[in-house]
Amino acid sequence: MSQYWSQLVHSLTPYVPGEQPKVDNLIKLNTNENPYPPSPKVLEAISEQNNEKLRLYPDPNSDILKQSIADYHNLNPNQIFVGNGSDEVLAHAFQGLLKQDAPLLFPDITYSFYPVYCGLYGIEYNNVPLNNDFEIDITEYEQKCGGIIFPNPNAPTGRLLALDKVKALLEMHPNRVVLVDEAYIDFGGQSAISLVNDYPNLLVTQTLSKSRSLAGIRVGFAVGQAHLIEALERVKNSFNSYPIDRLALFGATASFADEDYFQACCQKIINTREALTSAMTEMDFKVIPSAANFIFAKHPEQDAEKIALALRERKIIVRYFNKPRIDQYLRITIGTDAENDALIAALQEITQ
Amino acid sequence: MSQYWSQLVHSLTPYVPGEQPKVDNLIKLNTNENPYPPSPKVLEAISEQNNEKLRLYPDPNSDILKQSIADYHNLNPNQIFVGNGSDEVLAHAFQGLLKQDAPLLFPDITYSFYPVYCGLYGIEYNNVPLNNDFEIDITEYEQKCGGIIFPNPNAPTGRLLALDKVKALLEMHPNRVVLVDEAYIDFGGQSAISLVNDYPNLLVTQTLSKSRSLAGIRVGFAVGQAHLIEALERVKNSFNSYPIDRLALFGATASFADEDYFQACCQKIINTREALTSAMTEMDFKVIPSAANFIFAKHPEQDAEKIALALRERKIIVRYFNKPRIDQYLRITIGTDAENDALIAALQEITQ
Repeated sequence: MSQYWSQLVHSLTPYVPGEQPKVDNLIKLNTNENPYPPSPKVLEAISEQNNEKLRLYPDPNSDILKQSIADYHNLNPNQIFVGNGSDEVLAHAFQGLLKQDAPLLFPDITYSFYPVYCGLYGIEYNNVPLNNDFEIDITEYEQKCGGIIFPNPNAPTGRLLALDKVKALLEMHPNRVVLVDEAYIDFGGQSAISLVNDYPNLLVTQTLSKSRSLAGIRVGFAVGQAHLIEALERVKNSFNSYPIDRLALFGATASFADEDYFQACCQKIINTREALTSAMTEMDFKVIPSAANFIFAKHPEQDAEKIALALRERKIIVRYFNKPRIDQYLRITIGTDAENDALIAALQEITQ
Repeated sequence: MSQYWSQLVHSLTPYVPGEQPKVDNLIKLNTNENPYPPSPKVLEAISEQNNEKLRLYPDPNSDILKQSIADYHNLNPNQIFVGNGSDEVLAHAFQGLLKQDAPLLFPDITYSFYPVYCGLYGIEYNNVPLNNDFEIDITEYEQKCGGIIFPNPNAPTGRLLALDKVKALLEMHPNRVVLVDEAYIDFGGQSAISLVNDYPNLLVTQTLSKSRSLAGIRVGFAVGQAHLIEALERVKNSFNSYPIDRLALFGATASFADEDYFQACCQKIINTREALTSAMTEMDFKVIPSAANFIFAKHPEQDAEKIALALRERKIIVRYFNKPRIDQYLRITIGTDAENDALIAALQEITQ
């Protein structure tokens, strides 16, 4: 508290990211990072840019990256917005598109940054309950609103909403923006990007942090019709001209040029997820069906927080949320097969 | 214009950064970049981080960088805030500290992003005129205000405000934040960072983009007492958890470890600036005394915009602002000695 703060600052409840421990030799399954390295082509592209030109500003419009994402999805570059991680992209979307004269709707169990953005920009919101299976029930969204946002697959549940239901939401509120936050879509869902040209109210965000193994370079993007992208550009250009640095710009661009590597990584993670789901189900865990690179699971008898602590003693860290409805669940990132084996062995020990 | 935009977006007038041309072989003196490469130690540090660990998020608190800046200035890490370029740091400061119940004050001729931030966050402001020599007249700031911000040295004029006058402003408004934006301070000014422990209302911002030749990696920082830094952290953690990527984090940190290189670069630029000032004065230009890595100058007879166009024909780009009071001035970044010689020769040709 300080007399010098703007009034807003007193009321903020900042987001708390998952722990980034500074010691090595932990099995880190707490922040949904990819266990596999980025494509060697990414490292090569970054290496090529690591030279005296770092003295120069990057392209403020990140044109080569927009072009490359546009080509990848068969769209125009003016349908692409890029930012410093999808968190920055989301922040601009909250300020530039989702702040309206009626409450924003999002699930009660969802990415916990959403209410934080609402606090930052003074956006009223209503939480819409997931059903008892942690599914989004679209009929619950038949209410007056200023917009809708949800992750698909949802986080931290991992549950996917089928594309026909996304369409139904878009048609239910044609005058409101529906933002589909697809941070995890590459691990088993069908992207709503295919709908962008049909729905002027659809904005889709994605990130390179998860499926492209690039959490370390901070690049996310939004895809939508040009009029929505223009709102984001206007906000961005009133905030920071150059959010994507030269190294990230070229590294991210290279990632889209290595499709085989990308697909192979995603497939490995999907396979490991299915193996983990089977193993945990055998241990009596209830595992929510996941289309993401993590699973959300609870044990019928053992306390989730205690399991998390017991895993930690074994140098495995997972994410526990002390929140209503989910305080008996753990969110566990899918690691390599070796990490997965260690996790399964530890869980067997703990729950036996 | 779109029905989907938040109301705010309609009223924004985004900042327009200097051109980043995509062709080479231009003498680029338009965006105040450093003509010398970053320290080799920076490139080495980045290269060491360009590995499989890019799959992991960076440290959300950028602790090693804060520690290194704190050590450099003999302060504590909780007195340091870091962001994605000083533009992002400034944006958070506008939202978190400078939005108050009275107008923000800044010079009429100054960094043109300031009114843009005011538009983004709904901050009322008053422009305070520079005197006829383009100096900040601190007596003009004896008025009710919610805070004060100015670049020191000022941009685009290059004029420095002496530290005793900065102190006088801090003492004139002890209950308001005075933000000294020192993007160019290393080229000849005395930093107000030395005053931070004495003034609870002082926030100083700096950037690695100019004097440290790192515009390409987007790192800026703020220095102030812990209560001011906390406001920035609260805003930042409500906006984007990880604004500094892994490569930028380690590159920026390495820059503070190579003091000799840094000092030598700054001194070369100061020498070239003095040489350019003499040469242009001989050509009858009026050159405003500069403490920055650029000069601001006008010719008594020749139109500034025409000179800029004539330079461009000779593949030299400088910055021209079509704005009241300064539309006969050019802002020219200090280049290498060879670039400087080419510039002088071109100006002689144009003005003879």
